[in-house]
Amino acid sequence: MGNLDTVFASLREAQKALALVSRKEKDEGLRAVMKAIDADRQAILTANRLDVERARASGMKEALVDRLALNDKRINEMIDGIDVVIRQDDPIGRVLDGWTLPNGLFIEKITVPLGTAAIIYESRPNVTVDAFCLAYKAGCAILLRGSSAALESNRALVTTMKRALAEVNRFPDAVALADSGSRDEVDEILTARGQVDVVIPRGGRDLIRRVVDNARVPVIETGEGNCHIYVEPSADFESALAIVENAKIQKPGACNAVETLLVHRDAAHQFIPLLAKRLAGRVLLRCCDRSRAILAGAKDLPAALKVEAAAEADWETEYLDYILAIKVVDTLDEAISHINRYGTKHSEAILTNNLASSQEFERRVDAACVYTNASIRFTDGGQFGFGAELGISTQKFHARGPMGLEALTTIKYRVRGTGQIRE
Amino acid sequence: MGNLDTVFASLREAQKALALVSRKEKDEGLRAVMKAIDADRQAILTANRLDVERARASGMKEALVDRLALNDKRINEMIDGIDVVIRQDDPIGRVLDGWTLPNGLFIEKITVPLGTAAIIYESRPNVTVDAFCLAYKAGCAILLRGSSAALESNRALVTTMKRALAEVNRFPDAVALADSGSRDEVDEILTARGQVDVVIPRGGRDLIRRVVDNARVPVIETGEGNCHIYVEPSADFESALAIVENAKIQKPGACNAVETLLVHRDAAHQFIPLLAKRLAGRVLLRCCDRSRAILAGAKDLPAALKVEAAAEADWETEYLDYILAIKVVDTLDEAISHINRYGTKHSEAILTNNLASSQEFERRVDAACVYTNASIRFTDGGQFGFGAELGISTQKFHARGPMGLEALTTIKYRVRGTGQIRE
Repeated sequence: MGNLDTVFASLREAQKALALVSRKEKDEGLRAVMKAIDADRQAILTANRLDVERARASGMKEALVDRLALNDKRINEMIDGIDVVIRQDDPIGRVLDGWTLPNGLFIEKITVPLGTAAIIYESRPNVTVDAFCLAYKAGCAILLRGSSAALESNRALVTTMKRALAEVNRFPDAVALADSGSRDEVDEILTARGQVDVVIPRGGRDLIRRVVDNARVPVIETGEGNCHIYVEPSADFESALAIVENAKIQKPGACNAVETLLVHRDAAHQFIPLLAKRLAGRVLLRCCDRSRAILAGAKDLPAALKVEAAAEADWETEYLDYILAIKVVDTLDEAISHINRYGTKHSEAILTNNLASSQEFERRVDAACVYTNASIRFTDGGQFGFGAELGISTQKFHARGPMGLEALTTIKYRVRGTGQIRE
Repeated sequence: MGNLDTVFASLREAQKALALVSRKEKDEGLRAVMKAIDADRQAILTANRLDVERARASGMKEALVDRLALNDKRINEMIDGIDVVIRQDDPIGRVLDGWTLPNGLFIEKITVPLGTAAIIYESRPNVTVDAFCLAYKAGCAILLRGSSAALESNRALVTTMKRALAEVNRFPDAVALADSGSRDEVDEILTARGQVDVVIPRGGRDLIRRVVDNARVPVIETGEGNCHIYVEPSADFESALAIVENAKIQKPGACNAVETLLVHRDAAHQFIPLLAKRLAGRVLLRCCDRSRAILAGAKDLPAALKVEAAAEADWETEYLDYILAIKVVDTLDEAISHINRYGTKHSEAILTNNLASSQEFERRVDAACVYTNASIRFTDGGQFGFGAELGISTQKFHARGPMGLEALTTIKYRVRGTGQIRE
């Protein structure tokens, strides 16, 4: 017997019941959780302060401490996220298709809950609430395995959520926190065939790698984002400058930040110096030989501009930092080939005013989200209108891109007859 | 370098091109294959005879030899299957959803090919053609890894298919046969991350188990079918007898055959003796204590009737044979609990005239296909109208039930803007 066996069993029992209730009952549970998080705000913030103090004492980088820290605004965002999920249609019981066979059998394809999901994630406590509310609305149980750095915050949040569900008698056992902090616990989750229907690792490359290598249950890989923006000569350069700046600087640690800029040779001489001026002092540029030569020959560049030579490794790197790789390409085809070779199939953009180029880019780039003339920072469940997200799938299997309610559903065929037998 | 590296690379190149062509071009390729199989009929049958002779010489059971053997009728069925797939709509490029964000970004969710699929299967050569034509229509490349027993048949079929595609210049490299016969080859397929997007094992429990345990690429589990039929007192017994007989006898080796019959106690005294008369001499009955007592007390049972006591193991067993387990249950709830405990989530039926029972069964039974008043033998891609099938998924992840074209697709979000950046 593993340590989580009783947890798995109670998740499954709660899920079987939750799978059958109407939207009204699920929304009542979510509304109770929403109110309870608001009411328990101080206790949650106090618990979070403990995590933050410990993290600082242990020398955690401030950028990571920032991901961990809660404040009133972030609690409000959690609450708003639940509210958006409440307002969404029930993803369960939808008839996706239906037809009658020549023999009179009537077949319907309907959505049903996937079952029990487990999420293994790093420090951000909002994931605790997002994952719970999506799973709950989709009739799924959820096992939360947060990082030890967020242990007090997660305990406070899960205690509040479970108490709220218990008070309105709406399946408190449909959510559980795996909080032993041991690696064995993760292995137990990854091998829980028949108990866990999907594991979603949400975090850095190493975490995802370890999960994929050890899992015997289905996995949805998330979040690795080596994303590109490709600029054509016909693009509106003012808009393009704003988009590249936004995609690089607004949140460089996010998976949907841009890492490599590709510029068509006919745009390069004008666009790259403009961009260098815009980003000087804020972003280090790692340039291919041609873009470096352009910058070396450009006039009036700010003294604060830092430029280094790019190596092959730069094309493969998700910096998650104030660094941007730049490469000049000769053709749209070269840009697409570069992206399909080095990209992680996350979010890719073309900035152009050429319709044929936009269409070819959309068709040939193999990624969850392909953009024309917008910042790739929009790849996000909240931005897409899903209210919350379980993560951003970078795989093609089962779910792709920002994962909302639908990623936690599967289908069932309902077949009704009048005595048909097979000839 | 693995032995299959050049095969993977050429599949991928062909897939990238096939992904972009229109339905017309794909259907031309399929039509060429259809005609070529017809034209090469004698060569295919000759190759198949070699396999069959070897199989008989090695002592293969006749039931398995029958699965391996081709004849004119079966070749015609292959050809008809391709024709149905040709007549189906293109599963690629469909817009599944679309919406505009408050900032004006226009998002569309469109279907795209999953990529390269690999299928590892046992003796039936029709799977070779079914898997190819579904993959091709879905813009996917397919790697076929058939059993060594069908090697000559598969070589003949794949040679014909590739030649036909080459003659019309329509991506002959989108299909390949892995025919070394070594186990290493299977391991290479199972660990080909980035080269193979899904592996579908189609065969016995041991094959599926080995694939799941060793795969580092996504797997769709198929075909294990411990299926039930539950009979209520309100059922039409004449129809129920015909359905149970059909589900047990029409093809006992199929995954959608019935293995355990559950009978409500108020139907048991009348229905079980009727069924025993119907199946006597053809099916061995493994009965629970109550059903055995009923048969012991029944009059006029045929001498050919064979009855044995069921043990716990019988509820878990997929016989794939002329054996039927029988259990009397007190309630609908007990029937559903039994099915959800012992079933393999494949196909489950209730025979009743009670609407509430039918609805509760449909909602609570966790299976790919839930039937009311029909034989479960209809769970089949061909029967469902998909033309062919890759197999029947018994998992909930990505695909469930009979897998046709849709199982080989994924989605892409297409996002079009006019310079939007994230605030």
